[in-house]
Amino acid sequence: MVVMSSRVRLARNLQGAPFPGWAKKTDRQRALEVIMGAAVALPEMQGCLSRSMDSFTVLEKQLLVEKHLISREHAAKNVGSGVAINKAKTISLMINEEDHLRMQALLPGFCLGEVWETIDRVDSGLESKLDYAYSPKLGYLTACPTNVGTGIRASAMLHLPALVIAEQINQVIQAVNKLGLAVRGLYGEGTEASGNLFQVSNQTTLGEREQDLIERLRKVINQIIEHELNARQTLIEKRPHMIYDQVGRAYGVLTNACIQTSKEAMNLISMLRLGLDLDLIRGLNHGLIDELFLTTQPAHLQKRSHQKLTAEQRDVRRASLLRERLKDVQRPKLLAPGFPPAEDAADEGKTDIA
Amino acid sequence: MVVMSSRVRLARNLQGAPFPGWAKKTDRQRALEVIMGAAVALPEMQGCLSRSMDSFTVLEKQLLVEKHLISREHAAKNVGSGVAINKAKTISLMINEEDHLRMQALLPGFCLGEVWETIDRVDSGLESKLDYAYSPKLGYLTACPTNVGTGIRASAMLHLPALVIAEQINQVIQAVNKLGLAVRGLYGEGTEASGNLFQVSNQTTLGEREQDLIERLRKVINQIIEHELNARQTLIEKRPHMIYDQVGRAYGVLTNACIQTSKEAMNLISMLRLGLDLDLIRGLNHGLIDELFLTTQPAHLQKRSHQKLTAEQRDVRRASLLRERLKDVQRPKLLAPGFPPAEDAADEGKTDIA
Repeated sequence: MVVMSSRVRLARNLQGAPFPGWAKKTDRQRALEVIMGAAVALPEMQGCLSRSMDSFTVLEKQLLVEKHLISREHAAKNVGSGVAINKAKTISLMINEEDHLRMQALLPGFCLGEVWETIDRVDSGLESKLDYAYSPKLGYLTACPTNVGTGIRASAMLHLPALVIAEQINQVIQAVNKLGLAVRGLYGEGTEASGNLFQVSNQTTLGEREQDLIERLRKVINQIIEHELNARQTLIEKRPHMIYDQVGRAYGVLTNACIQTSKEAMNLISMLRLGLDLDLIRGLNHGLIDELFLTTQPAHLQKRSHQKLTAEQRDVRRASLLRERLKDVQRPKLLAPGFPPAEDAADEGKTDIA
Repeated sequence: MVVMSSRVRLARNLQGAPFPGWAKKTDRQRALEVIMGAAVALPEMQGCLSRSMDSFTVLEKQLLVEKHLISREHAAKNVGSGVAINKAKTISLMINEEDHLRMQALLPGFCLGEVWETIDRVDSGLESKLDYAYSPKLGYLTACPTNVGTGIRASAMLHLPALVIAEQINQVIQAVNKLGLAVRGLYGEGTEASGNLFQVSNQTTLGEREQDLIERLRKVINQIIEHELNARQTLIEKRPHMIYDQVGRAYGVLTNACIQTSKEAMNLISMLRLGLDLDLIRGLNHGLIDELFLTTQPAHLQKRSHQKLTAEQRDVRRASLLRERLKDVQRPKLLAPGFPPAEDAADEGKTDIA
């Protein structure tokens, strides 16, 4: 319910080749060819998409960013950089981003072990063909020293609406930071939290085995989940009207508005997801709600319309898409035990003046 | 569609008796007895409610204010002041408010002629029994010089959402003021406009026949109506998404929120009324919507609950009442010609990356 997706990425570089940021065009081209050649030969990457970054339109790149298949930095790359994405879109290899190779596995749900194993297999397959830059003392060498060692970043995307509503989120973020983990917004480093979605990841890559690091991250995330669930329980017990109100309004606006900014939509979808988790809404499931977080993003809306859209046009299309996708969702349960009944007892008597 | 209700009130005083603000208790008592005696004997007031103001609870008084049957000033009165209200609650006589007698006729819709004739009959009936303070030169004498002469205030309650949305309302108010008419909020002098409701009334009472004054007011109101209808037409042509959005959101929030402040409810009910006038909503009528403007007021909510309620409790009851009363209203029409279709053409093709 709380964890939307899990991801592990590894940073690797080729021995003896300059890092992409320092490399000449021909160096980058060669690294791209070598790595891409090895990548497409992997059994995990059979039938994959493999493209040079200059072959994408701006919109296509933005689609990949919204799907978390490439970084915003990689979307700015062109000739000399490339990407390979497996058929299931669970494995993505960015070539000549900040490092020669950034590979990730991404799956819905809370499955850090599984994504680690997936990307570890890909990494082993590539290591048998490529000559990685590796120091026996430091481990894998990377363009930025913060990635040296294991080159790993493991993360999970968490939906934490109750901690935000209860104003406990900053406390939680501070506590998580003290444990050496980072909390970021929807699109990673330097992005804002939107729709109450937070990415929690490791900060350090040196001096700890990958499995230990993932196990540590998993434990902290479990604690955050517990805090979120406690906050939900407290809210529903102490401020039920407020929660029912927020969920009801989210449903009411999403199913009836004709203009929806991205920011408002994210927050309302978040409230609807909370309503689903709290069993206040029928006719809805996590697949649909999590799809809406994605398909209401700007590039997805434009792909759907087969045209470039202004922000105003997107707001109209976004509202239209949301109404359409949510049309079978039933109204939230609004009356629970202990609520004032909708219709009070007879309206007569007591005074004769009204 | 635009005019919610029409009202005419007349101010009268007894010859030789001090005005209520200057009168001793016994003087006020005598004036109350004399006028009440004459009032209840009128055929128009057969079976009326006639009460001394000290016999009402605070809540009962507030109910009468919300129904526009007494003024807020009169609600503060006690022993020595009274009220007589006919069975249909279309005629109300306030005794010992600012003047000895303030009588009004109030009817839904745009019917200034009818309310004038009604209250004129009541006034003639009373004048045949009471000795009014009258000056051949000035006309009827009143406690405040602004009412001297005819003692009349004719007014209509107008619903002007399009002029507010189009930001033309201040222009209209200024123009109306220049014509010697006043524009006020929901509860008259010194109150704010709420729910886009505005009371338009005459300012002067001297030097003009009642029928002429009413005819002049009627013409100005007809011009305001025309401006409002033009503004609606322009909005629906030039900014259709915005109008559909506002109406859709009003419906969505009113039918799903669990907490509703009075201010928000008034504004949303106003948008729903606009949607009804623009034929965007089915299963709704003016009777219901205008009832909601009234029954969501604080005293009406408390009467319905048979108990005193805090502001927070009222907000919950208000939301509950609105959901209940609007449960059979159909979703607003959201797609009109020229609108982007909810579902675009096939979602496939063009790129193979998404």
